[in-house]
Amino acid sequence: MTPECGALPVIVQKYGGSSLANAKLIHNAAKRICSLKDDGTDVIVVVSAMGDSTDSLIALSSAVTGEATPDAREMDNLLSTGEMVSATLMAMALNTRGYGAISLSGGQAGIKTDSVHGSARIADINTDRLRRELDNGRIVIVAGFQGLSDSGDITTLGRGASDTTAVALAVAMQAKRCEIYTDVDGIYTTDPRLTDRARKLAEIGFLEMLEMAALGAKMNPRSIELGAVYDMPIYVASSFSDEPGTLIHGGEQTMEIRKAVTGIAVDRNVGKITVRGVVDRPGIAAGLLQPLADAGISIDVVLQNTSSDGTTDFTFTVAQADVDAAAEIERNQTNVEFAEVVAGTDLAKVSIVGTGMENAPGYAARMFSTLAAAGVNIDMITTSEIRITTIIERSQVQNAVEALHDAFELEKTG
Amino acid sequence: MTPECGALPVIVQKYGGSSLANAKLIHNAAKRICSLKDDGTDVIVVVSAMGDSTDSLIALSSAVTGEATPDAREMDNLLSTGEMVSATLMAMALNTRGYGAISLSGGQAGIKTDSVHGSARIADINTDRLRRELDNGRIVIVAGFQGLSDSGDITTLGRGASDTTAVALAVAMQAKRCEIYTDVDGIYTTDPRLTDRARKLAEIGFLEMLEMAALGAKMNPRSIELGAVYDMPIYVASSFSDEPGTLIHGGEQTMEIRKAVTGIAVDRNVGKITVRGVVDRPGIAAGLLQPLADAGISIDVVLQNTSSDGTTDFTFTVAQADVDAAAEIERNQTNVEFAEVVAGTDLAKVSIVGTGMENAPGYAARMFSTLAAAGVNIDMITTSEIRITTIIERSQVQNAVEALHDAFELEKTG
Repeated sequence: MTPECGALPVIVQKYGGSSLANAKLIHNAAKRICSLKDDGTDVIVVVSAMGDSTDSLIALSSAVTGEATPDAREMDNLLSTGEMVSATLMAMALNTRGYGAISLSGGQAGIKTDSVHGSARIADINTDRLRRELDNGRIVIVAGFQGLSDSGDITTLGRGASDTTAVALAVAMQAKRCEIYTDVDGIYTTDPRLTDRARKLAEIGFLEMLEMAALGAKMNPRSIELGAVYDMPIYVASSFSDEPGTLIHGGEQTMEIRKAVTGIAVDRNVGKITVRGVVDRPGIAAGLLQPLADAGISIDVVLQNTSSDGTTDFTFTVAQADVDAAAEIERNQTNVEFAEVVAGTDLAKVSIVGTGMENAPGYAARMFSTLAAAGVNIDMITTSEIRITTIIERSQVQNAVEALHDAFELEKTG
Repeated sequence: MTPECGALPVIVQKYGGSSLANAKLIHNAAKRICSLKDDGTDVIVVVSAMGDSTDSLIALSSAVTGEATPDAREMDNLLSTGEMVSATLMAMALNTRGYGAISLSGGQAGIKTDSVHGSARIADINTDRLRRELDNGRIVIVAGFQGLSDSGDITTLGRGASDTTAVALAVAMQAKRCEIYTDVDGIYTTDPRLTDRARKLAEIGFLEMLEMAALGAKMNPRSIELGAVYDMPIYVASSFSDEPGTLIHGGEQTMEIRKAVTGIAVDRNVGKITVRGVVDRPGIAAGLLQPLADAGISIDVVLQNTSSDGTTDFTFTVAQADVDAAAEIERNQTNVEFAEVVAGTDLAKVSIVGTGMENAPGYAARMFSTLAAAGVNIDMITTSEIRITTIIERSQVQNAVEALHDAFELEKTG
């Protein structure tokens, strides 16, 4: 896996579906690829399916299966064609520009996965063919989002996982970096649709980005994880402009004096379930949460109050869309005795994120006092080492974000 | 490759693109497949791309490459996705009907080809996986028209070659027969659009069918060839009705007393090039025809008059659409000296076909006298052992076909 002596540096570029939605956009991306190749770089390009073609394929399968859930293996076979189409078209676009290019399916690119159809994990990458094609002077286009299981069946890595393909290939090929071109132009201090105070970050650390991604920023968290584990720098930028984007990296190269808080993540679709009067005994959490897991409902923030008089209140948040189903499940569960189930909706999750907060006291206090001064009532609180999360009323989100953005001076760089 | 003791008989069914154009038609085909499976048969299904999806993919590639010809390997990668989509949808349709089914790409089905992208030939079929899936009680859906080369690249077998996939799989699996379901309901004595005297044949021999296919009947000639070589019966019928179709077979089972002439094949788009005053020396034919082959123009009937005064006239037919290009090429070729090049258009090719004509004299004479009596002028004649072909004016086609249909009593069965 070590690059041979004299081999060119490798850069992996990934283009999302909206960046490849038609022939003009494909050529737009091709132009960027060619100029990177001209710089004396070996280029591997990972592509998503064009525009909304994945949705079209899903609609086709629904038309055939009706109410029934399509077989996961067949669905993988079906969906994987979307990325193959854009990969071949990109290779053709590069060819017409006079550049040697070859498209490879995930399997042909050596991406081996486990056999969990629909959400396979990459087990290994055999880089022989990639290396050979690069050594032949070719630009290699790899269909994202897919691999091949041991049984020779096509697997997919889960929706949005073309980012994961790109980072994994960058790691396997010991690339200089992985570049993700998409329809957003970088990572912002907070959602720019919420406030014009939002500022694009020139760089962000992996751990901070992981929290931001998990909290709603438009990046695939698995790809960030992979980048963090293997220390592969990921550059996120817009394919529609030449504006500089954001470099996500391990942090060692950072020249800026780091600020404590890097950004504010917002999730505006939060619902809350409170199970009141739970008879307190070991196993409450499992008893209440397992039925939700069985029903495929993800829970987020979990909070259990200290017990008084032998009973306790157990509260957790779910996506707004899951509130009714979750409340119904809790009312009907028989694992745990309880008094009543109360559902709350129209909530939001606002988090401050930053590695600078780690081991540094006072940030939580500053966050809570800022929100109090802005008249924002905090419903729930949960923290990690580099994140403080509050659940508040949705109507208060803009108010809260602007107050926090000011308090932590996110408008200023460095 | 020998079926194991106790293995069920295998039947291969192939469905064309128009038979799979939407979810309703896919289920229509699925119903037929299920009833065959219920009969206690192991079923392998070969599918073409849905409706006009191949044309859509070609349009996509044209949008990207503009005037340039797309790379053949990339084109294969692109087009092969069409059959994968219909294969997965068919597997899903069978699943929703409670039948176990699995879709396989050509490569997964063990179809190995040479590496001539765009018109690969099947080299070998490894039936291990097919056998294993059948033994697990599954219906196997194979994406037609494609295979895998030694280098692991996807190849396609040429347009319309899903028929070839089906017959080749039937041969490899020692199937009872191969059934081709399409939008025509069988093989007719002549084109039913030309005359209502046309009659559907219950059966036809391989060699006759080969001539009919080469002469315009809507069947892939390579699939017939393959059936002939391995004596695999091919049943052609409509997927839109339960009307009996036509069995193409080796002839041994034929109970009918065979008629001399089985059918009349018609090609209405014929152009003619005559190179006059060619200085007669060895190598004329090669000198005149090689430049056309280089330009990808197929020639059909070739006729070289006996030389007089040291020069000769050399005439050949091409598809109507290629006439101008072919004439231009001959005018500019420098291999052979000539006086002038004359192009003729609006011609048609009418052939009578039948193994009964073999070694039996008089059919040519009867054909020519029938055409003369009908006032049809014959421009060129060419014959094979089981076929007599005439080139006539296109305006005379219906007249000629009806006269021949009567003369050879094709309206009568047996």
